[in-house]
Amino acid sequence: GKKVLIVYAHQEPKSLNGSLKGVAVEELSKQGCSVTVSDLYAMQFEPRATRNDIVGCLHNSEEFNYGMETWEAYKRGDLSSDLIEEQKKVQEADLLIFQFPLYWFSMPAIMKGWMDRVLVQGFAHEFPNCYDSGLLKNKLALFSFTTGGSREMYAKGGISGDIRYLLWPMQHGIMHFCGVKVLAPHICFAPEYVSEEKRKEMLIAWAQRLKTLWKEEPINCSPEWYFK
Amino acid sequence: GKKVLIVYAHQEPKSLNGSLKGVAVEELSKQGCSVTVSDLYAMQFEPRATRNDIVGCLHNSEEFNYGMETWEAYKRGDLSSDLIEEQKKVQEADLLIFQFPLYWFSMPAIMKGWMDRVLVQGFAHEFPNCYDSGLLKNKLALFSFTTGGSREMYAKGGISGDIRYLLWPMQHGIMHFCGVKVLAPHICFAPEYVSEEKRKEMLIAWAQRLKTLWKEEPINCSPEWYFK
Repeated sequence: GKKVLIVYAHQEPKSLNGSLKGVAVEELSKQGCSVTVSDLYAMQFEPRATRNDIVGCLHNSEEFNYGMETWEAYKRGDLSSDLIEEQKKVQEADLLIFQFPLYWFSMPAIMKGWMDRVLVQGFAHEFPNCYDSGLLKNKLALFSFTTGGSREMYAKGGISGDIRYLLWPMQHGIMHFCGVKVLAPHICFAPEYVSEEKRKEMLIAWAQRLKTLWKEEPINCSPEWYFK
Repeated sequence: GKKVLIVYAHQEPKSLNGSLKGVAVEELSKQGCSVTVSDLYAMQFEPRATRNDIVGCLHNSEEFNYGMETWEAYKRGDLSSDLIEEQKKVQEADLLIFQFPLYWFSMPAIMKGWMDRVLVQGFAHEFPNCYDSGLLKNKLALFSFTTGGSREMYAKGGISGDIRYLLWPMQHGIMHFCGVKVLAPHICFAPEYVSEEKRKEMLIAWAQRLKTLWKEEPINCSPEWYFK
């Protein structure tokens, strides 16, 4: 069976994000996948990139450089235990699903902190091994999120611009940079402003998509896909 | 004199980001501006959007909705004290400068948390008061940051795409949404890979720009500026 890591960032289990996460666990488990969830708020996951991420002495204690220190600590096996644990989950996964409510055209800070701290040089990339030769190649990623704004606001020519514009930093800048292939995003527009029945349809649509997920082709993660 | 808030996110005072922040404090003070700095790592600023941001009872304790609860708490004056303090600084400022190293095509999580938690509905926007009628209109913002990648990687057609692509969520999705007008970004490309002399030139160029900053016109913050 395939291995899936769901990185989940919502404070409320009863939220639509909580239900979408639940649907994914259920459907993928039913398929025989082994599913792991990193429930970031429940874990009180630390988003701040600090000296605490390195156990023991620094490589250069005169001038703290987070990128360099975590790279060195990774090679020595001296990253903090919460990071090592997340890296193990990533290493084992065939598919990473990021489930979150869109905050300010991006992911919530707690999830950005997961990216900042877990995907260190040496583990996820190591120049010149980036983009197509990133160290996490042969994995897939899928961004699944809810929005506050409507589909119309996020249309091309809409006031918030094509939703694809804001996917560039997350899909290309993070996942593609690490060599991960990106499946089409799964977006639930403005669930707070629709009926309970519509929200149920959103959950059904997600379960439905997951049934044939492994047959999907990744998107072509280049500027054309985002900006046409 | 004008009032400036510098929101600063670097762990190391001796870093180029630390020096850029120092240069801004010095040059703007010299001009007679009153300058405040929110040094996020030094403050151990909390990036996580949680129930702790609301003092006392919740509006709906059955199902926690961060956006709704902070909106209600703002109206009641019941946001946590660290948020009220940051909002006061924003309210008083004519110009917000965000100084940070680019992490994953975006700001570090600690600064994303500042956006997520400080710019709450009721304070920074309140539908339909968003974009040009956002509640922080008549203010200016400027994103000043360093990159790991080179200018060539961030050129149009470069492997990381035009640097303007990644400015969309920060400048348009956050600042413009709140009604803030955006000055051209200030970008120091790949300072880690240039000589000490080149880094000094970067500091001088920033001081130089700041001398005539108040005469600058904001960018036209629409898709054309970003995606041409």
